[in-house]
Amino acid sequence: MQFHLNGFQPGDPDVARPAPGRDGGAGGELPPEVDVLIVGSGPAGLVLATQLSAFPDINTRVVERRAGPIELGQADGLACRTVEMFGAFGLAERLLREAYWVNETRFWRPDPNDPACITRTGWIQDVEDGLSEFPHVILNQARVHALLLDAMRRSPRRLAPDYGLEVTDLVVPDDPAAPVEVVLRRTDPDQTGEAMRVRARYVVGCDGARSTVRRAIGRTLSGDSANQIWGVMDLLAVTDFPDARCKSVIQSERGNIVLIPREGGYLARYYIELGELAPGERTADRRISVDDLVTAARRILHPYTLDVGEVVWWSVYEIGQRLTDGFDDVAGAGRNDRPPRVFIAGDACHTHSPKAGQGMNVSMQDAFNLGWKLAAVLEGRATPALLHTYSAERQQVAQQLIDFDRDWAARHSARSHANAGLRDLYTEQGRFTAGVATRYGPSIVRGGTEHQGLASGFVVGTRFHSAPVVRYADARAMHLGHVAQADGRWRLYAFADRDGVAPGSRLCGLCDFLAADPCSPVRILTEPDADVDAVLDVRGIVQQGHHALAPTDIPALLRPRKGRYGLIDYEKVFCPDPRPGHDVFDLRGIDRERGCLVVVRPDQYVAHVLPLEHHDELTRFLTAVLRRPDAPAAEAYDVARSAS
Amino acid sequence: MQFHLNGFQPGDPDVARPAPGRDGGAGGELPPEVDVLIVGSGPAGLVLATQLSAFPDINTRVVERRAGPIELGQADGLACRTVEMFGAFGLAERLLREAYWVNETRFWRPDPNDPACITRTGWIQDVEDGLSEFPHVILNQARVHALLLDAMRRSPRRLAPDYGLEVTDLVVPDDPAAPVEVVLRRTDPDQTGEAMRVRARYVVGCDGARSTVRRAIGRTLSGDSANQIWGVMDLLAVTDFPDARCKSVIQSERGNIVLIPREGGYLARYYIELGELAPGERTADRRISVDDLVTAARRILHPYTLDVGEVVWWSVYEIGQRLTDGFDDVAGAGRNDRPPRVFIAGDACHTHSPKAGQGMNVSMQDAFNLGWKLAAVLEGRATPALLHTYSAERQQVAQQLIDFDRDWAARHSARSHANAGLRDLYTEQGRFTAGVATRYGPSIVRGGTEHQGLASGFVVGTRFHSAPVVRYADARAMHLGHVAQADGRWRLYAFADRDGVAPGSRLCGLCDFLAADPCSPVRILTEPDADVDAVLDVRGIVQQGHHALAPTDIPALLRPRKGRYGLIDYEKVFCPDPRPGHDVFDLRGIDRERGCLVVVRPDQYVAHVLPLEHHDELTRFLTAVLRRPDAPAAEAYDVARSAS
Repeated sequence: MQFHLNGFQPGDPDVARPAPGRDGGAGGELPPEVDVLIVGSGPAGLVLATQLSAFPDINTRVVERRAGPIELGQADGLACRTVEMFGAFGLAERLLREAYWVNETRFWRPDPNDPACITRTGWIQDVEDGLSEFPHVILNQARVHALLLDAMRRSPRRLAPDYGLEVTDLVVPDDPAAPVEVVLRRTDPDQTGEAMRVRARYVVGCDGARSTVRRAIGRTLSGDSANQIWGVMDLLAVTDFPDARCKSVIQSERGNIVLIPREGGYLARYYIELGELAPGERTADRRISVDDLVTAARRILHPYTLDVGEVVWWSVYEIGQRLTDGFDDVAGAGRNDRPPRVFIAGDACHTHSPKAGQGMNVSMQDAFNLGWKLAAVLEGRATPALLHTYSAERQQVAQQLIDFDRDWAARHSARSHANAGLRDLYTEQGRFTAGVATRYGPSIVRGGTEHQGLASGFVVGTRFHSAPVVRYADARAMHLGHVAQADGRWRLYAFADRDGVAPGSRLCGLCDFLAADPCSPVRILTEPDADVDAVLDVRGIVQQGHHALAPTDIPALLRPRKGRYGLIDYEKVFCPDPRPGHDVFDLRGIDRERGCLVVVRPDQYVAHVLPLEHHDELTRFLTAVLRRPDAPAAEAYDVARSAS
Repeated sequence: MQFHLNGFQPGDPDVARPAPGRDGGAGGELPPEVDVLIVGSGPAGLVLATQLSAFPDINTRVVERRAGPIELGQADGLACRTVEMFGAFGLAERLLREAYWVNETRFWRPDPNDPACITRTGWIQDVEDGLSEFPHVILNQARVHALLLDAMRRSPRRLAPDYGLEVTDLVVPDDPAAPVEVVLRRTDPDQTGEAMRVRARYVVGCDGARSTVRRAIGRTLSGDSANQIWGVMDLLAVTDFPDARCKSVIQSERGNIVLIPREGGYLARYYIELGELAPGERTADRRISVDDLVTAARRILHPYTLDVGEVVWWSVYEIGQRLTDGFDDVAGAGRNDRPPRVFIAGDACHTHSPKAGQGMNVSMQDAFNLGWKLAAVLEGRATPALLHTYSAERQQVAQQLIDFDRDWAARHSARSHANAGLRDLYTEQGRFTAGVATRYGPSIVRGGTEHQGLASGFVVGTRFHSAPVVRYADARAMHLGHVAQADGRWRLYAFADRDGVAPGSRLCGLCDFLAADPCSPVRILTEPDADVDAVLDVRGIVQQGHHALAPTDIPALLRPRKGRYGLIDYEKVFCPDPRPGHDVFDLRGIDRERGCLVVVRPDQYVAHVLPLEHHDELTRFLTAVLRRPDAPAAEAYDVARSAS
C-alpha cells in the first residue's frame, strides 16, 4: 500500500479521501442526473459500483429493488481469478481470512460391490500448483456483497446503494449525445408516490435473469427450452460422511450431490440435481419441500447418515442454459456507428447450472471488464469506441461458459463414466473453473501475438499471471501482480534485456523514450501537472539479484518524483525471487536476451507483449484508444501518427 | 475462523455477539464499580483492554488523560512476537497489509578512504529464517492503537476508552476482599466538577513513565542517573541515500542515525542520538529545534543529501535505563499472602532507549501476560495466586531488557567496532529483538523441563513456536499456532506417538483419559453444560499424511460434538505438511516413538511438555492453578490429589 504521498494523513489508509461534496458520507436523494445508473446490487452491480466509486469525478448510483442488503443464501463460490480481482480492490486479506478454502475435491460413486452404497473413488487437488497465488474459496454471497459495500463506503465517492427502487421503464434517445431516460418507482407499498425520473449518461442492468433493463433494450435470453431443477440447502448438520469438510462430488444410484463446505467450520451447502422440467411444467408444480431435499440427500449419502440441526437457507429453482444476443443496446444491431449507452451484465446476460460454481464469478468479471472502460470514457481518457469491446469480449466468454456448462452437465450425468471419469474432467477443466482460461480476442485494447515468444507465460488476451519477485528498494518478497490496483491505470511491466540497466540497454532505451520523447505515450496521455504514473504505471523487472544493483543505475522513470513534495516512488523496480524455481523470467518464459514489455489493462488482462525497443508500436497501440482529457482526441492521434 | 456453531449468524464474523446489556455499543458513564480499571490507553493499556473485552462477564473500563486517540508520532516497531499476538487477536491480516515490513538491515560506517563520508559495510536479513511465520513490521503507534480499538469495539463488551479522565488518587484497603478505591478527575479545564470515585476489583496502571498508579502503590523506577537525549523525526523527504527504504544503522564521524522506513512507501523515521545530559541538566535546557535535528541528520548522512518536504512529527526526549522494583502492589513486600490488586505495565515499569525497538513490544507483552490471568481469576477459573506470577515473570523480562539495552547502547557507540561489529551484534541478538527470546521461569503456570527431550523445539517457558501443518478434515495447509486465539483457553497439543491413532496408542490413551476419566482435567475444569473444549482445547497432530487417515480412526475427543446442535468440530486434527523440510515433527524435534503433549497457556507460552501417558502429572499441573467456577477450589484439588 502506498499513502502519505501528498503529506501525512492520519487514520485508516483504506479509507480514501472523499471526493469534493462527498464528505457527508453515502446516501441522499437520487439526483435527477447521474453519470452511471447501475440497476441491481448483486455481484455484478456491486463490483461495477466498487470500481466506479474509486473515481472522484464520476457520479454513480446503484438502485436495488430489495429493501436492504441480503443476509444469506445465493451463490458462494469464488474462483482464483475472482480473488485476484478482490486483491485489486484491496479486499483479498479479509476475504481469505473469512472464507472456506477449497483445497481438494473428493469423488464418490456407487460401490461396485454394493451399489446401494457410495464409496470414494478418488480425489484431486482443487487448483493446480502455480495456477494462481490465491486459492479457490467459498463465502456466502451476502458476505461477498458486504465486502464490496464496505469498499464502496470507503471510496472517494462514499457510495451506497439506493434500496427499494426499481426501474419500470427506460428510453434511449436517438440523439447519441443525449442521456438515457430512466423511470423508477419505490418498491415499498407504503411509499406510494409519483414515478421518479433519472437521466443517466450510461445505464447498466445488473438486474438478474428477468432483467428489466435487458427487456427495455430489446434483448432476450435464448437457449435450451428444457430447464433443470436444482435443490440447494445450507445446513448445520451432523453426518458421518467422511469428506464432510471437503468439496465432494457424489454420484449415487439414487441421485447426485455436490457438497460444498462453507465458511466458519460447520456450515455446508448441498446442491441436489432434481431432473428436468417437462415442457410447460413449472418448478412450483412439483411442490418440493425442504423435507424432500433432506430425504433426497439422505438417500444419496447412504450408507452415511445426515442429522439436520438447522436449515439455514434452501431453495428449489429451475435454470436453463441461456444467453443474450448482445451485452449492450447497439451490439450486432448494425448500430456500431454510435457508442452504446445501456449495458447488461451477469445473470441478465447468461444463465446456466450452478454445478461448476461459475455464475457469480463470471458476473463479477463482466462488471470488472466494463468498469474501467466506462470510467476511462467518462473521464475523457478513452474514445467511446472502447465501450464496444465490452459486449464483444464478454459475449464470447458467456458463450464459452454456456458450452462448458452443457458439456459439464452431460458428463456429470453420464452413467458410463466409471470412477476416473469425473476426476479427469475436473482436472482437465481446472483452468476454466479457476477463471483463468478467459482469453479475449483481438481488439483496440488487445494487440496481436506476433511478439508472444518474448514472454510465453504472459499470454496476450489472458489475465496477467502474477509471479513472485523481490522489490528492489526494501528487499520485500512479494507478488508482482499485486502492484495492480483497480484504479483505472494501465500497467507496463518492462522486463530487462541482457544488458539490464547499463546505458544503451533496451530497458534504458524504453525508459528514456517514455520519459522524454514527444511521441511517448506517457507524455501524450498524462496531464502536465499529474504524476508521471497517473495514467501509465511503468514497472521495471531486472534479471539480477537485488544486492547487485545500485540505485544510481536505475533509469529516472523507475524512480519517479511525485506529489506535492516531489518524493521518490521507490516501488517501481523488482528483482527475481532467488529461491530455486521462483525466478519470474523462467516462470513466465521471458526472453533473457531481449527482455520484453508486457502491457496490462486496468482489469489485469494482458493487452500486448512488445519488444522493449518497439517504441512506435507501443505509442500507436495505446493512443488508438486512449487520449488526454484536456486535449482534443484528434491531437493525440496526430502525434501518434506522426510517430509512425 | 470458526462461527455459526450455535446457528447461523448473519453479518461480519469478526463482530462478536454483544454481551448482555452491551448491545447499545460502547460508552456510557463510568460506573461506580468495575471489575478492572485500566489507567492509560497506550499500547499496554489497549492490549489489556482488547484481551479483557473478549470476556462477556468482565466489566472493564479504560480511562485516558488525553481527549481522544493519538493521531501520529510515538513508537512504531512491531517485533515478530508482537505480530503473533496480533494474530491471536484476529488482527494480523490488517496489520501486515498496512505496515512496512523490515526485511533487511543495512550497516554504514565512515569510509576508511574518506572518513567524512559514510559507506555501506554490510547487511543482514532482519529475521532469521524460520524464527517466526510473521515478519518484523513498522507501523505508526496511532494505527496500532486503532487496530486494537477496533477489536475492542467489535468484542462482546463493545469496549471503548473513557477519554479526558485522569487518576488523582488510589487507595488499596487492608481488607484483601475489598475493592481498590480510585479517585479521578476530568482533564478538560472547561469541565469542572467534583472528583469521581470508582471502586475496582483490580486496577492496572498503564500510564507511562510518570505513572500515577505506580506512585500510589509506592513503587519507583530506579537505574541510571544519566539520561540519554534522543531526537526523532518522521519525515517526508527526498534523499539520495541508497538505503532509504531499508532499515539502516548509520555510524558517522559526526553522529549516528537509525533510519527506519515507515508504512505507505514514502515516510521514514530518523532516530538521532544526541548524547547524555549532564547531572541536573534537562532536555529543554538545550533548546534543540527540529532544524537542529535536520542539520544533524544531514551531517551524518554526508555525502548524501536530505531535502525535507514535511516534518510529520518530531520530538526530543531524554531517557534513562530504569526499572521498577515490582509490577504489583505486593510483590517482594513480604505480602505474598494476599493476592495483588493493583498492577503496573509498560513504561510505568521500565524505560530504556528506543534503539532496539523494544519499548512498545515489551509493554504489550506485559499486558498480554496479565490479561488472561486477570480474566481467569475474575471468571473463577483460576486461584488468585496466579496473579503473583505476573510480576515474577515480567520483572525478569524487564531486567533482561534493561541489561540488553545497556549492552546494546555500549556496543553501538563503541568506536572500536570496525565494519562487522554491529552486524554481528544484530545477528547475535536477532532472537531477542524479535521478541522470541523470552523464557519464563518455573512457577505454578510453568512446569519443569524433565521431559523437554520429547519436543526440543517447544521450549518450556518460551512462546509456542508455530510450524506448518495440514488440517486433516479439509486438507488446508496452515500454521498450527494459528489455532490459538486470545480467548483465555489453554491449548493442549498432543503429538502422536509411533502407534498414532491405533487402539492402545499413547495418543488414544490420552484422549480416552481426557474424555472420560474422573481425574481428567477436562472433566474437572469444564462445566457440564459447556462445550468440551471450553477451557482446555485439545488438538491432535498425527505423523502420517492426511490421506492415510480415516475419520473413524480419530478418537472422539478430537472430533467433539459441540453447541446447541451437537455439531462436529472438524478442526482438531492436523497432519504434517508434506513439503520437504516442513514436517512439524522434524522442525520441532518431537520424539516420533513416544510423541508428547505440549501444554500451552492462553498467552501462547509453553507451560509444560509431558509424555502422552503422564495423565496424573497433567492433572496435577493444571489443577494446581485452575478450577471450575461452579465448584469450590478445594474440590478440584481433592480430585486431583486422589488421582496422584
